[in-house]
Amino acid sequence: MKRLDRIHASADVKELAADVLPELCAELREEILENVSHSGGHLASSLGAVELTVALHRVYDTARDRLVFDVGHQCYAHKLLTGRREQFATLRQLGGLSGFPKPCESVDDAAIAGHASTSVSVALGMARARTLQGEDYAVAAVIGDGALTGGAAYEGLCDCGASAEPILVVLNDNAMSISENVGGMSHLLALLRVRPGYLRFKRFYRRTVGRYGSVYKVLHRIKEWVKDLLLGDNMFEDMGFYYLGPVDGHDLPTLIRTISYARGLNCPVLLHVRTVKGKGYAPAEEKPALYHGVGPFDLESGVSGAEKTSFSSVFGQELCKLAEEDPRIVAITAAMTDGTGLARFAEAFPTRFFDVGIAEGHAVAMAAGLAARGMRPVFAVYSSFLQRAYDMLIHDVSLSGQRVVLGVDRAGLVGADGETHQGAFDVNYLCSVPGLRLWAPSSYAELRSMLRKALDADGPAALRYPRGGEGKFQEDTSDRDALLLRPGKDLTIVSYGITVNDALAAAEGLSVRGYSLAVVKLNRLDAPDFEPAVQSLKKTKRLIVVEDAARAGGLGTRLLAELEGRGLKLQGFRLLDLGDGVVPQGEVSGLRKMLGQDAEGIAQCALELINL
Amino acid sequence: MKRLDRIHASADVKELAADVLPELCAELREEILENVSHSGGHLASSLGAVELTVALHRVYDTARDRLVFDVGHQCYAHKLLTGRREQFATLRQLGGLSGFPKPCESVDDAAIAGHASTSVSVALGMARARTLQGEDYAVAAVIGDGALTGGAAYEGLCDCGASAEPILVVLNDNAMSISENVGGMSHLLALLRVRPGYLRFKRFYRRTVGRYGSVYKVLHRIKEWVKDLLLGDNMFEDMGFYYLGPVDGHDLPTLIRTISYARGLNCPVLLHVRTVKGKGYAPAEEKPALYHGVGPFDLESGVSGAEKTSFSSVFGQELCKLAEEDPRIVAITAAMTDGTGLARFAEAFPTRFFDVGIAEGHAVAMAAGLAARGMRPVFAVYSSFLQRAYDMLIHDVSLSGQRVVLGVDRAGLVGADGETHQGAFDVNYLCSVPGLRLWAPSSYAELRSMLRKALDADGPAALRYPRGGEGKFQEDTSDRDALLLRPGKDLTIVSYGITVNDALAAAEGLSVRGYSLAVVKLNRLDAPDFEPAVQSLKKTKRLIVVEDAARAGGLGTRLLAELEGRGLKLQGFRLLDLGDGVVPQGEVSGLRKMLGQDAEGIAQCALELINL
Repeated sequence: MKRLDRIHASADVKELAADVLPELCAELREEILENVSHSGGHLASSLGAVELTVALHRVYDTARDRLVFDVGHQCYAHKLLTGRREQFATLRQLGGLSGFPKPCESVDDAAIAGHASTSVSVALGMARARTLQGEDYAVAAVIGDGALTGGAAYEGLCDCGASAEPILVVLNDNAMSISENVGGMSHLLALLRVRPGYLRFKRFYRRTVGRYGSVYKVLHRIKEWVKDLLLGDNMFEDMGFYYLGPVDGHDLPTLIRTISYARGLNCPVLLHVRTVKGKGYAPAEEKPALYHGVGPFDLESGVSGAEKTSFSSVFGQELCKLAEEDPRIVAITAAMTDGTGLARFAEAFPTRFFDVGIAEGHAVAMAAGLAARGMRPVFAVYSSFLQRAYDMLIHDVSLSGQRVVLGVDRAGLVGADGETHQGAFDVNYLCSVPGLRLWAPSSYAELRSMLRKALDADGPAALRYPRGGEGKFQEDTSDRDALLLRPGKDLTIVSYGITVNDALAAAEGLSVRGYSLAVVKLNRLDAPDFEPAVQSLKKTKRLIVVEDAARAGGLGTRLLAELEGRGLKLQGFRLLDLGDGVVPQGEVSGLRKMLGQDAEGIAQCALELINL
Repeated sequence: MKRLDRIHASADVKELAADVLPELCAELREEILENVSHSGGHLASSLGAVELTVALHRVYDTARDRLVFDVGHQCYAHKLLTGRREQFATLRQLGGLSGFPKPCESVDDAAIAGHASTSVSVALGMARARTLQGEDYAVAAVIGDGALTGGAAYEGLCDCGASAEPILVVLNDNAMSISENVGGMSHLLALLRVRPGYLRFKRFYRRTVGRYGSVYKVLHRIKEWVKDLLLGDNMFEDMGFYYLGPVDGHDLPTLIRTISYARGLNCPVLLHVRTVKGKGYAPAEEKPALYHGVGPFDLESGVSGAEKTSFSSVFGQELCKLAEEDPRIVAITAAMTDGTGLARFAEAFPTRFFDVGIAEGHAVAMAAGLAARGMRPVFAVYSSFLQRAYDMLIHDVSLSGQRVVLGVDRAGLVGADGETHQGAFDVNYLCSVPGLRLWAPSSYAELRSMLRKALDADGPAALRYPRGGEGKFQEDTSDRDALLLRPGKDLTIVSYGITVNDALAAAEGLSVRGYSLAVVKLNRLDAPDFEPAVQSLKKTKRLIVVEDAARAGGLGTRLLAELEGRGLKLQGFRLLDLGDGVVPQGEVSGLRKMLGQDAEGIAQCALELINL
């Protein structure tokens, strides 16, 4: 029988004898590896945080105390320890366990965390509520050093350090964000990591100078007193935290002892823990970036680093090509070099490539500065992460019309990462940025052409493209803002981006059954050319709009408004979009089906409208 | 003749003899005071930065070098020195000089800066462009300690410190953001400010221990070497900056010497300058928060602190009342206690009031944490500043349906602050947040009732209300989501919020001339009840939508889509909104007129549609 078989809640972890905890950790690693090799998921971070998670559960009761994970890539062991082992095989599937903490899944999950850097803020809010309500449960945040590169984390830390709230911030420092860490914070942490050496030196110094007896004592006391009074040993202390660490994050007894000690302190505490990303699985320890988020893989041979062709990889390739022709082109990523297909660019043009850490706001404002001086900055970023930079898009880019280009990756449905990662909002928020042009390529060929158009635009420009690869539609129609892809008499389907594939398939499918469906494709979304749609609708009078974007601010509403303005009365219509709510996790194809956006769903909807 | 009479460009400042510079500073202060007392503006920051600005112009040529002001409240002296003295009387007026730096106004303004904390990012982009292009001009950012509380500043500093770019970041530290500074960063800066004392002690220590000759030398050298190697003296050094300071920001010779020295350093330099906000005008030195941004005032007697009744003040009063009844209510501000009307709340409920600094993202995520534990957090924030927290609204608040209440102040037209501050986008971005309810009160009475409704909502909720006070419409119709305010046969005006006043005035005005105009008012904007509008339009067939929001995602488009969906064909319509572009500075009444949104404009538009 496994140790894990008896663990159904945080409290059970406390029941175990201390000497069997390493066994528990080994079992957790085994379980995580076994499952993730089948389901895919965030492997390396979760493996690195196993001992830390067990230690936290030894000290805290997560059903009552509030443990806020940042990003939550590290939460798999936590899920296994809190009654979700049986469902673990459903990880990241439609209707299954979330890959991130999720309060509606378990009382042990304090907060949703799919985006980085807000854990300290959320935890501080909880700690303040606790204090105001006169309660005494504990509140802790676990934040990786990668998430610490985000400004939101700094805002949270500043307020937290000054708050005097009893709260523990665990800095899970694996010297990596998703790929290698960058920037001043990483330097700062590197300094703290060598602190033990500094402390050892201090001891040596004391011993040596100590020989001079009274001189040492008096002077040293004055010096220490003044120094303590004036300057902390590091930024966290200066902010008001009681700083503990760095502690070896795989040394369970020390971790448990230190966390217990921290819990007893009546103030904001920062515990600096050093972990190894991928700990316990050699391939992941060696190449943690590769194992950050993985698809299913073979446990023996590991993940293959081979890059499949995708919109991201084509984007990266094309940008390399363009950068060879135009020295003004520079590329920016916010800790997503691999994910956005920029690895080759980084290698080929190291001085023209900037990884700014998980700092999307800075990336956009920095791009504005580059553009203001005649460079052609291209920021490749996931749709849902770009939400962080909404204000900079308006304030620093749009108001002065800077020629910043955005490669908006993972637009639309993203699949297994679920709610927090769906690229549902970019069409709306990007179209609200004054003067920004937005294109939606449907094929690799269009992605290439539209990237060129975006670079040539005399103001800000963006392309939105989905996760994964192109479909059957592989043409390049980028010379037009919109076009009729297929004429028809019975109904007009209007769509853009990757959704044109299902629109075309639906039309073809129904043509066999004698129905004639028109398909209109929109290429530009910010100032759409509705003419082809209007001309087709004059004949068909029936409309379906298919879009992988939220309804609010979507093209469906805008097209209907246009039709009203033109006095064109429809006999029936339907908007097949991502709705007004939140789209859950699941395979993209399954989600499309669920939303009625796949070829079959569109065809069925068309039949209903035609037979109305 | 004044010294200023001969200054038309940065270069002219360098021509002056060093001993007349104090005179120049005095003249600048006089000019700023004289003008701002007539025009209103950001006084205290600008007065505090006079010597710093002159010193910067002594070293840099702002026509060629790039000087990026953060927020730009401090830029008046800079404008006076760079050929804009004659237009200075037009400050913040329609068609006049901007109160912020503005590249289209002068080559000496490097970047637009109305929102805080992005100067380092923008400057770093410029510095990188400079280096890539093989140019040698200098780049500097001037950032206040207030702006340093924003996470974007930290993101910029992290990247900047690690960049090795020659760049100067001047930290203009007046120990204030807009009101008193808060949080860990303020603590951190306080520590740096006492550094001179520490340094003096260090000298004393060296002298004393120095008596022991060789012991001192050897040990001290080892110690300093290890310390330098391992730990900087402060966060900025740890990030990679060469740190200089703190320097007295009103000591011109030292400032000039230090900036020249910094310019010669071939790396990122942080120069810490201590200034006095409001320097040189006693009333402003005493009450800098009061003189941060002011309307016209009498130079002799100063600004009156008396609070006029406004949506902001009513919001604050009502919140105090509600907080007395409900201990769960807490209030949050991002460095805008006075501006958002929360001063009284802060005084009455000090433990339930949180000023988090210029950190809107943190404010929203922290509110989510408070709400998750059963508190009722209310975050009062300006519409355009809330853009910073768009992702947190979705990720931390909406996805888990937290009962966070937003008081969205300065929604719609804000007037003299111009482009960067217009609250044009909130209707769009707030309505895109899943599950968020958005109300638009038109009167104080409605503000009060809707605040109660927002607190009772079972998910996130927001109120949007304008700068300034209510108009003639003073009823409370908050029990309905939308209603017909006035029946009519010829045309239907649909409006919400403060714009209903002009809608009603237009209808009344035309009724005298025999026209019958209906006025429909929308109260809830996220899921609008279009029924009253549709019923009225069935009769009138003519529509004007008046809204103080951008067109994209506005209610006009959504109403037209609704009408198309219902098959109601209009004979004519017009959308009177803030358009797709950017609304400039100017008095609100003037802007309304310009946009055709005042009573007269609406009436004229109505006549055109009726006589079509």
